[in-house]
Amino acid sequence: MASVNPPRGMRDFLPADKARRERVLAVIRERYRAHGFDEIETPVVEEYSRLHAGIGGDNEKLAYNVLKRGLDADAIRAGADDPAALADLGLRYDLTVPLARFYASHRGELPSVFRSIQIAPVWRAERPQKGRYRQFVQCDIDIIGDGSARAEAELIVATLDTVDALGLDGGSVRVNDRRVLEWMLASFGFTDDEKPGVLITIDKLDKIGPAGVAAELRGRGTTPTAVDAFEAFLTRPQTLEYHPYGERQIRKALPEGAPDEVVGHLVGIGEAVAAARSGDGDVPLVFDPFLVRGMGYYTGTIFELAHPSVDYSLGGGGRYDGMIGRFLGQDVPAVGFSIGFERIVDLIADGDAAAASAIVLVHDRDVPLGELLAIKAGLLADGARVRLEQRTKNLKALLERSAADGYTSFATVTAGAALADLEIKPLA
Amino acid sequence: MASVNPPRGMRDFLPADKARRERVLAVIRERYRAHGFDEIETPVVEEYSRLHAGIGGDNEKLAYNVLKRGLDADAIRAGADDPAALADLGLRYDLTVPLARFYASHRGELPSVFRSIQIAPVWRAERPQKGRYRQFVQCDIDIIGDGSARAEAELIVATLDTVDALGLDGGSVRVNDRRVLEWMLASFGFTDDEKPGVLITIDKLDKIGPAGVAAELRGRGTTPTAVDAFEAFLTRPQTLEYHPYGERQIRKALPEGAPDEVVGHLVGIGEAVAAARSGDGDVPLVFDPFLVRGMGYYTGTIFELAHPSVDYSLGGGGRYDGMIGRFLGQDVPAVGFSIGFERIVDLIADGDAAAASAIVLVHDRDVPLGELLAIKAGLLADGARVRLEQRTKNLKALLERSAADGYTSFATVTAGAALADLEIKPLA
Repeated sequence: MASVNPPRGMRDFLPADKARRERVLAVIRERYRAHGFDEIETPVVEEYSRLHAGIGGDNEKLAYNVLKRGLDADAIRAGADDPAALADLGLRYDLTVPLARFYASHRGELPSVFRSIQIAPVWRAERPQKGRYRQFVQCDIDIIGDGSARAEAELIVATLDTVDALGLDGGSVRVNDRRVLEWMLASFGFTDDEKPGVLITIDKLDKIGPAGVAAELRGRGTTPTAVDAFEAFLTRPQTLEYHPYGERQIRKALPEGAPDEVVGHLVGIGEAVAAARSGDGDVPLVFDPFLVRGMGYYTGTIFELAHPSVDYSLGGGGRYDGMIGRFLGQDVPAVGFSIGFERIVDLIADGDAAAASAIVLVHDRDVPLGELLAIKAGLLADGARVRLEQRTKNLKALLERSAADGYTSFATVTAGAALADLEIKPLA
Repeated sequence: MASVNPPRGMRDFLPADKARRERVLAVIRERYRAHGFDEIETPVVEEYSRLHAGIGGDNEKLAYNVLKRGLDADAIRAGADDPAALADLGLRYDLTVPLARFYASHRGELPSVFRSIQIAPVWRAERPQKGRYRQFVQCDIDIIGDGSARAEAELIVATLDTVDALGLDGGSVRVNDRRVLEWMLASFGFTDDEKPGVLITIDKLDKIGPAGVAAELRGRGTTPTAVDAFEAFLTRPQTLEYHPYGERQIRKALPEGAPDEVVGHLVGIGEAVAAARSGDGDVPLVFDPFLVRGMGYYTGTIFELAHPSVDYSLGGGGRYDGMIGRFLGQDVPAVGFSIGFERIVDLIADGDAAAASAIVLVHDRDVPLGELLAIKAGLLADGARVRLEQRTKNLKALLERSAADGYTSFATVTAGAALADLEIKPLA
């Protein structure tokens, strides 16, 4: 007999967890909509050729592929060397590739600047490990059709407002630009061939420090003069003072001569965020010239959501101006911000504020069904949430489990009782 | 280049459709929770062996199967004759098989009578046709652990209340029992071998009438005396008066001698529903001795949701006391009711009641970004939903599309304007 557990690396959600997840999703959805974003939905599967077109980066290797229907043994043998002959569909590994496909398909029906919300699961066949799941929910907002810094600012403001609404005040966003990284690496003297490897190493800077980065690059035989220049820059005698966010700080954090256009875009994001959060004196942005972000499709700004309560990022995103063109045959600017829903939901406390009145009716076995359901109907009409439970020997355990499931009060029902007779008591 | 359309038989949802779907789902979720049901979630994929164990009936043939990861060409060739060697997972084709698996896995953490909600997509590789989709949402409630008529009554009352809350008042439920069908067919003289085919033919009674049913059965060589007896019963001289629902009507609609236990269970459902809806004089149930329902796993009561505005069913369900035992190794009674979400959502009118204040800000190109975002932030703080749109030559078209997307008012913003200067007008 097969296991009764969910498939490896995936999860069942019991009532308390599911209620918390839905509560968090409702807040996210409501806040994003308030900021003028509109929710869309695409099928969970996309064409195999779309998912394996080189856009998805490393995630393409992690895709779950769906067997063509109606293949006979001969067709399977004939296609053994070519996955595309066996699989015509795959489960999406992110929401960005489907969004680009969606936009190309429906552009004529969408506003010229399209602000989308996608709240949906994705699948990656990663090695299961603590906190990593093979099915997990992503919450993305994207702005398609606006190449200005306003788009980044709108995403950042909407995201921070949403995180605030979830009770996680104090979030901030680390910002960088892929073009800054490109320019900086070239200015140190790294070759184009070396750049991707150097970026992977820079991504570890927080963990291994400047000396570790330099050692790893030298160990790989990277251009020695470039490594020397980079190490000198990383260890230069100055405080890494990125606050307050603005042109002076951005230029101080970079080698001299950073391109004006990119710096101007980064400064513009800060000005727009400041305007939108006029109440706050401090702009919750941090310029981080060594922020990398893994995905290859980023072309400009990249950012990550940080929160003082945790040392990992709670979301991230960036500009991917080249991707829509892969689908549409015409470039359209695009930028997105994805909240790390699975991480955030773990930070949100239990407790169902919406269930002001959630009542468990504990009844004796001999209470006639009609009486029970009439009482339940009366409570429902008053706006309560009602669960019926037949009295068990261990009443305490029954009430404790009900409280864990989010119920807030209880009453016992005996034969002959009516709604008016009920004595409703709080669940301790 | 691959198509930019969604995969065959599946749909993208644009903002207006998606908003309506989410609004309907929120009502369903809220009503089911109020009735004491608790939402759970399982992964969208289940183990291949679970999905192909003979429980899912015809749906098993429609499953999308997921290729094992990391198969090389030799392994594929070796497994060409055995789908289970190539696919270890599949997309679920219903929510009942996953629920039974979930219950077996988590029984110790659940109430003794477990009332579940599942609101989630399922996948079936059916031939695409109007109104049939390969990915569609099911909304199921199930009660596990209660073999009494109360369970059916709770499901029916919760379902009708939910449909009422969606504005579809006047729904009713057609009720029958698989044991009634079994007994009736035996009493006419059909053999056990013939029964499955006879049920398939009876399912067409509404369309082809008694004569059509008899002709089809005779054409297949079904036991002639049984067909004669059945036809005589179908055409007996009496009005088919199934109302008001109760013992007298149930017995009148059946051949003489129907088993007391089954009739008693059906009567009990009616009494419980009447008690729960004490305000209503009329019990919204109809006994239909020829209601069949396709799934082979039903063991007792079966039912379908009807509504006067449409001539097809809006949902259905039944008792499947045998299925949990397939997973748990111990029989547990279970009964479920599934709302036909895709059909219902088509009956719900557009119009977003929640968006009391949804404002489009139409701005000139030269309005500084900071001013725009400050105005937007001020409106957000007042609880509005806000979309920014740069003025286009065809302002009328822009406003019409905004109205179609659920926005209710607009204001134009020129450079130098502040929130207090805005003149907010309704979108006609």
